[in-house]
Order: sequence, then structure tokens, then C-alpha cells
Amino acid sequence: MHCTVEIISIGNELLIGKILNTNAKWLARSITKLGGKVNRISTIGDTSGEISSTLHSSLSKRPVFIIITGGLGPTFDDKTVDSISDAIQKPLQLNEEAFDMIKEKYREYGKKISKKIILTPARIKMAKLPIGAIPLPNPVGTAPGVFLVYAQTKIIALPGVPEEMKTIFSTSVIPLIKESVGDLFVCEKSLKVTNIIESEIAPLIDTTMHLHPRVYIKSHPKAPEPLPHIELHFSTKSKNRTTAERWIDNAVDMISHLICDHGGKIDKV
Amino acid sequence: MHCTVEIISIGNELLIGKILNTNAKWLARSITKLGGKVNRISTIGDTSGEISSTLHSSLSKRPVFIIITGGLGPTFDDKTVDSISDAIQKPLQLNEEAFDMIKEKYREYGKKISKKIILTPARIKMAKLPIGAIPLPNPVGTAPGVFLVYAQTKIIALPGVPEEMKTIFSTSVIPLIKESVGDLFVCEKSLKVTNIIESEIAPLIDTTMHLHPRVYIKSHPKAPEPLPHIELHFSTKSKNRTTAERWIDNAVDMISHLICDHGGKIDKV
Repeated sequence: MHCTVEIISIGNELLIGKILNTNAKWLARSITKLGGKVNRISTIGDTSGEISSTLHSSLSKRPVFIIITGGLGPTFDDKTVDSISDAIQKPLQLNEEAFDMIKEKYREYGKKISKKIILTPARIKMAKLPIGAIPLPNPVGTAPGVFLVYAQTKIIALPGVPEEMKTIFSTSVIPLIKESVGDLFVCEKSLKVTNIIESEIAPLIDTTMHLHPRVYIKSHPKAPEPLPHIELHFSTKSKNRTTAERWIDNAVDMISHLICDHGGKIDKV
Repeated sequence: MHCTVEIISIGNELLIGKILNTNAKWLARSITKLGGKVNRISTIGDTSGEISSTLHSSLSKRPVFIIITGGLGPTFDDKTVDSISDAIQKPLQLNEEAFDMIKEKYREYGKKISKKIILTPARIKMAKLPIGAIPLPNPVGTAPGVFLVYAQTKIIALPGVPEEMKTIFSTSVIPLIKESVGDLFVCEKSLKVTNIIESEIAPLIDTTMHLHPRVYIKSHPKAPEPLPHIELHFSTKSKNRTTAERWIDNAVDMISHLICDHGGKIDKV
């Protein structure tokens, strides 16, 4: 069974094109390398209805994981936890463990700026989690991550600040994904192909994939015709590293010969 | 009425985190500047079922535009047009106008490499469009863009190669969005705020937005507490440029005073 993942990126700044969704790319890369399979990345705004309905729709596909980024902070438009609570019908309550984490953070900050920081409702909000949720420690920021299980899906909410997201993912989420994936080795390779156009490579990919069905080959046109530069990307998974590498090598060998026979040139990337 | 837009980005390379989704960011930025409102960016793989069901789901929200990128080329995993045809139940047929564009392209390429390029099925595929679709000329690549109307939604499919996507968008899509938006001026401003933490700014944003309801203010934590750097982003739209600028300036003035009163420091970005 695949360790399937849906990513939900929350933030109006993404929808107005103010920033690149580097979080989703980083997560997708990390999950793929761990042997997981990202099926969809949904980028939506800071609207409760939108977050709940997207989570609903993702849950209906029964992925192993749903990873949400953004909207965990103290501002009025940080609506992720509230929307999760709506979507899965688990009311919010003050989570003592999360509250301890947050109190400790503000105590530390207060010390650093020599001023006691009051626990305003906006700050306490970050400790209100759906019943049954487990807070994930945030070593580099304030809002803890959130982990909960609904039906067969593990829902994980992480902050949108990249450094916080990456730290919590590395500390608390990687072990969960590894456990779900089991022993699986992911092998990838890329070839840079020139002097041949994509439409001429298309049937060569078909032939190679037909004879090497465990290897997925994807062509990425990097520069348009008539002076094309195409990247071919090969990927496979196996419980055995040597097997995965052999599958890839065999497919690379075969398509390399076919491409050269058709006048193309190949550089290993 | 808002000129609402859903973006669908197609490509396994995005889901394995191989590349950043720069296309979606560029489109979202361009559409926002034109006065449109992007409600969602869905990133999915090269799977017909997934493309059709995502298109279905986007259509159900009745946006003014759905803009799809990727999957228009000649390879086996270029399935966008086929999937659109499935989703809206309009069968594919050879579009004479598209076929002329493609024939002309391959004639040109053939001349450049002094070799006649045969119109293989993979190449002819790019000219097969759903009945009623209009091909959009692609001055920098082979596959034409595709434009069609379903119910009240304008569906536009563009190639995934950024240069091709941008060129077709600029030439053929901008006029359609401008027509839908009408005269609308978009005004944005950013402030860089330091020396104050996000949870202290949160109630100041609430107060300011309450008194300046036409201005949307969003805080972006750029560095985690305890030495925070927060970007505040202000945006509004009006038929009148001066009005929009005045709204923004008033909101900026008000929150700047509030932030300084609370010990924060402000740099204009």
C-alpha cells in the first residue's frame, strides 16, 4: 500500500502570488524521498469555510496523511485549527500540554526582552486544539504543530514560517512517515537530452516503459522547440536498494540507445 | 462581482517536489494585479481521472475562469485536453485551426534542422481539441493553448513550459481577464515591522481593519519570535485609483501609529 499524502497550503499571500509556495515543494521533496506519494497540493486562502471544505474533500480520498501548513499563529486570519475542528466535528478545548509549551515560550521571550508578556486571548488561542489532538513541539517558534487521527488518516498541521515548519516536520513527522512507509528505497535519475524534440522522444519513452514497467519516466521540456533541451526523469521504488538501482540503470541504458539512434544527444545530470 | 479564478497546475514533477510551482505564482500575481481574485491553486499529477475530477470540482464553484497549466505536449502523459473533454463531455475532434498552427510549426522546425518532420500521431494529438474549443496561438512553442466556455466558466489550458505559458497568457488571456474585471484599480503596500511580536500586532490589525473595512491587512511572520520581523501587507481595490490609494494610506497611517505606541519599529518596504 502506498503511503499517500495530501498537502494543504493555507495563505492568501500564496493566492495573490506574493510568495512562492516553497513549503509545499520542500514537503513534497521530503515525503517523496522517504517513499511517500503526494497526490495533491491544494493552496487556499485564510477562510474557515474553504479550509474545512478542502480538508473534507481530502479526507474523502482516504490518504494516509494530510499535511496542512499555515494559519496556526495568533492573528485573526489564523484559522486552521478552528477549521479542522469544524471539519472533523471535534470541539476545541484548551490543551494543557500545548498551553504549557506556549507559556514557556512567552516566559523565555519575556526574559529576553526584559518584559513580562501577558497571555492575551490571541496567544491562548494557539493552545486550543480539537479534543484528542496532540501538540507537536516547536523548537524555533511559538505555535505548536498539531497531530490528530481521523478515520484512517493522520492529520498534521504545521506553521507557515518555513523554518518552524521544517523543524517540526523533521523532528515529529518524519518518524511517522517512515513508520508508515516501512522499508522502501526510492531511486531517481535524470538525463539531459538535446538535439531531439519532445514529440520524437514520446514513443521512445512508451517503448522503454513498456519493457521496464517498474520505472516511471517523465519528460520535462526545459526549452521550447526548435532547439529543445529535455530532461528525462526516472524514478522507482523497491524494498531492495540494488534492485531499484538496477531497474533504473536498465531503463536509462535502453532509452539512451534509442535516443542516440534517433540523433539525440545525452548528458547525465 | 469578483472576477474569480481557479488555477490547476498539472505535473508529477510538482508532486515529487522536483520543481517549484513558479507558474502558479506568476499567474496568481498577474491575475491579482489585473484585479482578479484567485480562490484556489490545485496541483495534481498527470492522471486523467485526477485532472477530470479536479476540473469538475472547480467548475462546481462557478468561477469566472479556470486556468490550467501543463500536460498539453505530445508525450503519453500529456493528458490535459483529453481530460477536459471527459470532464465537460465534449468529444475531441481534429481542430483545423490548431492543426494548421502545428503543421506550420513543424514546417519551420524542419527547415531549421534541414529535415522534414513527419506528423506522427503524437504530434497530431496536439491538434485534437474538444468540440467548440478555440486554439490560442503559441508563438514560442508547438502546442497551442486551448480556450473554451462551459456554463459560465471560461476554461483556459496553457502549456507547462514557463516561457510558453507566459507568452500565451500575455497575448490571449490578459484581454479576457481585463474584459471581465472592467475598470478596477488594485492598490497594495507593505510595511516591515520589527521589535514587536506577531501576537501583539494581531489586535492592532483587528482594530485597523474594523475602521478601514475596505483594506485587507495580512501579517506575514518572516522570522520567528523572539526577534521577530513581520511584514504587513495591505491591499484594496477600487474603480478609482486615488480612492484606493487613500484607503491604503489611511490604514497604513493608523496601524503605524498603533504599532509605534506599542514599541514596534516600522520600515516601509
